Amino acid sequence: MDSVEAYLADIIAAIRPLPTRELPLAGAVGAVLADDVTALHPLPSFDNSSMDGYAVRASDVTTASRENPVVLVVSGEVAAGDTRRHDLVPGSALKIMTGALLPAGADAVVPVEQTDGGTERVAITQPVPAGAAVRTAGGDAQPGDLLLSAGTRLGPVHVGLLSAAGHGAVTARPRPRVTVIATGNELVEPGGQLEPGQIYESNALMLAAAARQAGCPAVQHPIVRDDTGAVLTAITDALTSADLLVTSGGVSMGGEHDAVKAALSTLGTVTFRRVAMQPGMPQGFGTVGPAATPIFTLPGNPVSAYVSFCLFVRPALDAMQGIFRERSKRGPATLAEPVRSPAGRRSYLRGILDADAGLVTPVAGQASHQLANLARANALIIVPEEVTSLEAGASVDVMELP
Amino acid sequence: MDSVEAYLADIIAAIRPLPTRELPLAGAVGAVLADDVTALHPLPSFDNSSMDGYAVRASDVTTASRENPVVLVVSGEVAAGDTRRHDLVPGSALKIMTGALLPAGADAVVPVEQTDGGTERVAITQPVPAGAAVRTAGGDAQPGDLLLSAGTRLGPVHVGLLSAAGHGAVTARPRPRVTVIATGNELVEPGGQLEPGQIYESNALMLAAAARQAGCPAVQHPIVRDDTGAVLTAITDALTSADLLVTSGGVSMGGEHDAVKAALSTLGTVTFRRVAMQPGMPQGFGTVGPAATPIFTLPGNPVSAYVSFCLFVRPALDAMQGIFRERSKRGPATLAEPVRSPAGRRSYLRGILDADAGLVTPVAGQASHQLANLARANALIIVPEEVTSLEAGASVDVMELP
Repeated sequence: MDSVEAYLADIIAAIRPLPTRELPLAGAVGAVLADDVTALHPLPSFDNSSMDGYAVRASDVTTASRENPVVLVVSGEVAAGDTRRHDLVPGSALKIMTGALLPAGADAVVPVEQTDGGTERVAITQPVPAGAAVRTAGGDAQPGDLLLSAGTRLGPVHVGLLSAAGHGAVTARPRPRVTVIATGNELVEPGGQLEPGQIYESNALMLAAAARQAGCPAVQHPIVRDDTGAVLTAITDALTSADLLVTSGGVSMGGEHDAVKAALSTLGTVTFRRVAMQPGMPQGFGTVGPAATPIFTLPGNPVSAYVSFCLFVRPALDAMQGIFRERSKRGPATLAEPVRSPAGRRSYLRGILDADAGLVTPVAGQASHQLANLARANALIIVPEEVTSLEAGASVDVMELP
Repeated sequence: MDSVEAYLADIIAAIRPLPTRELPLAGAVGAVLADDVTALHPLPSFDNSSMDGYAVRASDVTTASRENPVVLVVSGEVAAGDTRRHDLVPGSALKIMTGALLPAGADAVVPVEQTDGGTERVAITQPVPAGAAVRTAGGDAQPGDLLLSAGTRLGPVHVGLLSAAGHGAVTARPRPRVTVIATGNELVEPGGQLEPGQIYESNALMLAAAARQAGCPAVQHPIVRDDTGAVLTAITDALTSADLLVTSGGVSMGGEHDAVKAALSTLGTVTFRRVAMQPGMPQGFGTVGPAATPIFTLPGNPVSAYVSFCLFVRPALDAMQGIFRERSKRGPATLAEPVRSPAGRRSYLRGILDADAGLVTPVAGQASHQLANLARANALIIVPEEVTSLEAGASVDVMELP
């Protein structure tokens, strides 16, 4: 059996980051910059007022006080978005709005609250230093300044900054598109009628949602029956629109009806391996198709499938964007109840973590089909391979579920 | 001036949770359950095998050993998805696949690894207890068991569970639809040509992305000029397809060109208030239209707009789904550098938090137009109203940015 680390390392080694693309900003959230982005122009691009008030020369209002206001002629008004050139005649003032271009000759803005708000003449009741209430051109960034580093996953503020800095589009690695294919003769679409021996499909729905939660566009393929040809057709179809494929089911260790295993014996580089973990021992990974598209063949047990997704598919999705660091939050916690674990396999037990108390309680049922118990959990309790039991009060490593 | 808490409390008091709707599972991720969901049927709904192997009566194989295997006639095979009734003749075995219906009369499954894998007859080399490798009907949930509690925000595993349990749809409060409207004569669409006095629009892009990051579908309205009629039209248009509106700009304290303020003086219940915080002092909130749609009028400064979104709009979005608890992660950290803060206002300084070291470093420029500095931050450093400076080494409250 392979260790979890060895298996993950092999996956990551096989992943080629997606090529970079020119993305419009509105579609760039979640994409990852391949290169540093620098400022092309000063930001802001012109001196402007940070308040509503009066543009002045600071030297004209040095004696202003509430008792002896300085009274200046108001020679005009500059609104935000006014692109005309305004010149301040020394000894006068121009009314100015927040964000408006500072007139030539002005070096400060007196906030309206420190005046009588006059329109023909204004009485100014406090002096202001030069530069007061002025946002200087380049005060946020100068041309050539680093705005965002290579490897940044673009969030709301980043696209805002790119837009403000005049980048209408950005070169980045987009989020991988995921297709999830559930296989199995026993599967029935949610809400339909069940006969004994049949179950409702839930894995493709869950895994596609998990891919979306990881930031990726994801689609579910319709249920595929346990037929090698049908599985091959589904995979080939999906290759036209997916950057990464996930199958669920059809890969148990001894079954002759393992259609996914059979299909992938004729296509791609997938190897099926036993990984020293529970749940999720039977794993398969490789690439298929002309673009060497990564494919994961996850176990059909829903808990196994979900844990495998968190441990292997999420890091692979990150790696396709050139990000190779851990995204899950891990840390120590104290076990509230004893746990057992098989020798030689690392357990990822489902638990309820109280992060404030640093306490984690295993859920009642730990079998790998017990989805209701997984749904109560918010963390995985990691029990090392060589440990077969832990008492309440033991310190354990815990990984928060996304 | 109002405190941050008083202002937020008024917002939350004015929010009416969205009505519940019947949502298909594929569209239900992010929705919030209004009622508990219980199991209608046993889960799993029938006894089935957890492994590939042979269904037997455990009492028929009690003497099995490697030296003296028990040999049983294999009288047939049950695959996953086989809905026929199979009966086990005592003293024989049925080949069975993972997930397949346990035949009547069988009470255990011998894993294929503990046999010779025979097809006519099988030699079994280990005894198994009754119940071995059998997932019992109802072993995950019994009819009437609580599956998910009211108030649960549905994630991937939850929709998987609902599907598995036969719920083809779910009654829940959907994620609010958000429309963001940026106003200002100075705004130019990203990537266009700028004249002095103009800036690129970035707030609507950023805030719509922030709403999506909070799980909500969001659209940007095209830029609206500083014209009361144009603003009214934009708001009225947006009311047809949004559950919550956000405007940016047009609300400074003293401007006569404040088109948003002017428009909302004729429509809805919006009040404009000064909140004792920096950035983001000028705030406006109320409801508009026949559905009493919440509307936030955020400041035009990008840092003020974003901080206001985090502090007020995100909790309001949660409240529209009936969730009234804090979503942001907060905690103490040690200041790496000294900071200053205005008396009487709570500062939300932008900082870079090293969570492992418990250390937070304020970014270099803290003015509310300095978006490049916000883009470097991952946390807000909260300085209380009565504090005007803090030394390096001081303990501060820090709120992680989403």
